[in-house]
Amino acid sequence: MPGVLLKLLLAGWLLWTATALAQEGFQVIPLGVAGGLEEDNLSAYLAGPLDRPVFVALDGGTLRVGVRRALAAGSVTLPTEEGGGEQIFLNKRIAAYLISHAHLDHVAGLVINATDDTPKPILATAGVWADLQNHLFNWRIWPNFADEGPPPRLAKYHQQILTPGQVISIADTGMTVEAWPLSHSHGYASTAFLLNYQGHYLLYCGDSGPDVVEKEGRLAALWQRIAPLIRENRLRGILIESAYPSDRPDHLLFGHLTPRHLLAELAVLGREVSLQGVQVIITHVKPGSDGLVAMQNRILAELQEGNSFGVNFHMARQGERLILAHQ
Amino acid sequence: MPGVLLKLLLAGWLLWTATALAQEGFQVIPLGVAGGLEEDNLSAYLAGPLDRPVFVALDGGTLRVGVRRALAAGSVTLPTEEGGGEQIFLNKRIAAYLISHAHLDHVAGLVINATDDTPKPILATAGVWADLQNHLFNWRIWPNFADEGPPPRLAKYHQQILTPGQVISIADTGMTVEAWPLSHSHGYASTAFLLNYQGHYLLYCGDSGPDVVEKEGRLAALWQRIAPLIRENRLRGILIESAYPSDRPDHLLFGHLTPRHLLAELAVLGREVSLQGVQVIITHVKPGSDGLVAMQNRILAELQEGNSFGVNFHMARQGERLILAHQ
Repeated sequence: MPGVLLKLLLAGWLLWTATALAQEGFQVIPLGVAGGLEEDNLSAYLAGPLDRPVFVALDGGTLRVGVRRALAAGSVTLPTEEGGGEQIFLNKRIAAYLISHAHLDHVAGLVINATDDTPKPILATAGVWADLQNHLFNWRIWPNFADEGPPPRLAKYHQQILTPGQVISIADTGMTVEAWPLSHSHGYASTAFLLNYQGHYLLYCGDSGPDVVEKEGRLAALWQRIAPLIRENRLRGILIESAYPSDRPDHLLFGHLTPRHLLAELAVLGREVSLQGVQVIITHVKPGSDGLVAMQNRILAELQEGNSFGVNFHMARQGERLILAHQ
Repeated sequence: MPGVLLKLLLAGWLLWTATALAQEGFQVIPLGVAGGLEEDNLSAYLAGPLDRPVFVALDGGTLRVGVRRALAAGSVTLPTEEGGGEQIFLNKRIAAYLISHAHLDHVAGLVINATDDTPKPILATAGVWADLQNHLFNWRIWPNFADEGPPPRLAKYHQQILTPGQVISIADTGMTVEAWPLSHSHGYASTAFLLNYQGHYLLYCGDSGPDVVEKEGRLAALWQRIAPLIRENRLRGILIESAYPSDRPDHLLFGHLTPRHLLAELAVLGREVSLQGVQVIITHVKPGSDGLVAMQNRILAELQEGNSFGVNFHMARQGERLILAHQ
């Protein structure tokens, strides 16, 4: 009997360990993936630990409709203790918003849904927060739901300022974030967010042009930051845009990447560290005249064709669930 | 033989006349009807003459997704001379935007879709245009697609300023518009648009609180303007909001109407003129915890219950086609 008990305990421990190992890392739920136009599918990505039912929203272009589609797909579930639909999920499961820049396709859903949201922080650089405060939460375009800016301050959203390179705790998530600046055409600043959960990292890049066009070296600096994380097998994934196909001329990029430019940027990173097996999730494809999916397929094919790095490219699709775990 | 020819010609003329009579008035296609939250269903209404394939957009909360759903419902058709989907419709069939106020749920789709739109005017009062220009088309939240404001001016949208009470032609539509001010909480101005097409009138009201709460008498003044049009049987319909149900307390209206308040406002109008048979389209219902449709049904029932005027209440539904014609 003691022998059987021991075996059962051992089997249970092994099972627990295997489960725990399988759950080291992040889950990502794209709530909106289009690079503009589609009002029901604009940039927003839930990211959270695999072992805790909590998320941050990386940008907030489309929230409510995105959650509805993720629920319909079974990618997320409602808190069991409460009824209601996507509103309960938005209120209970999103602990904070991280906003890469204030272009409307990245914040419209956040602003629109503020009326029925619960109190939480919005994390952004000072420049991005200035745009949100001055132009959106200003009592002209929307009531001031922030705790700064023009009175009355409804103070639903706490203004949390990110200083590039500094590690900040995201309350109630177990995660930290580091902001890194990106260039989004003519000196307009966007942001990359490097999330850390118990030593696992996830990189989300807001809109970004290529260094060769933007000439500020932002991606090169970011690659220097993450190269050691890849070397140590701590980076679980990169979300980065490719808004246009490779034949888009440089003077019409408007601060965006193409497969050609993204592959060139990855080559810069690849000179520091092997990219074999690195997960690269493609975001922010601008729908073409044949629609979003046709353009996504074209851009993914262009990336695969130039994939000499052994990177795992994946095209983000609205409402799916991505497991970005320890390999 | 001349007798037969004459009869054929006469029959043809009668048929033509009947058709022409049946087509006097407007068609309205709601592109988005929810009073907030639903990123794919925000305030926007196409309105145009029944006998010409051209529209103005009354507010622009959700454009592209709304047109997609109207196309799917068969409520509108694509220009036959061109391929492509909703983008072609947006480009070719919408001649102008009329914006009642700059709250994001009334303009998000317009801003988002500006990148792929064709040149056209945006008609709004000076105050509303100031908000659009300073806070949205300002190179911080979105590129400046207007022909005023911070350079470079992309000049896709012509800034056309409406002075309350003045009749302005809307180019390429055969319609004119008069703007009338509305009160939308604490002195925030919204706008009603009175369209005229060959002597047929259509009234669209942006967000509005009741006079008894707002205390600026805006609805009373508007009723004075339209009472003679109803008396002369020239008013084909009224689009007006009822954001909340009747039990919403006055201090939580945030500049909106309820069935109780709307019925009281219609009673004011009804003292001037019989409202028997007047078409009243209800807009901007805020989704409740049971969703949008449940709240729409509740609000419509509350309106019907108090309908002592013989008004024809209709709840606007996304993507449908409404014929508002000479009775």
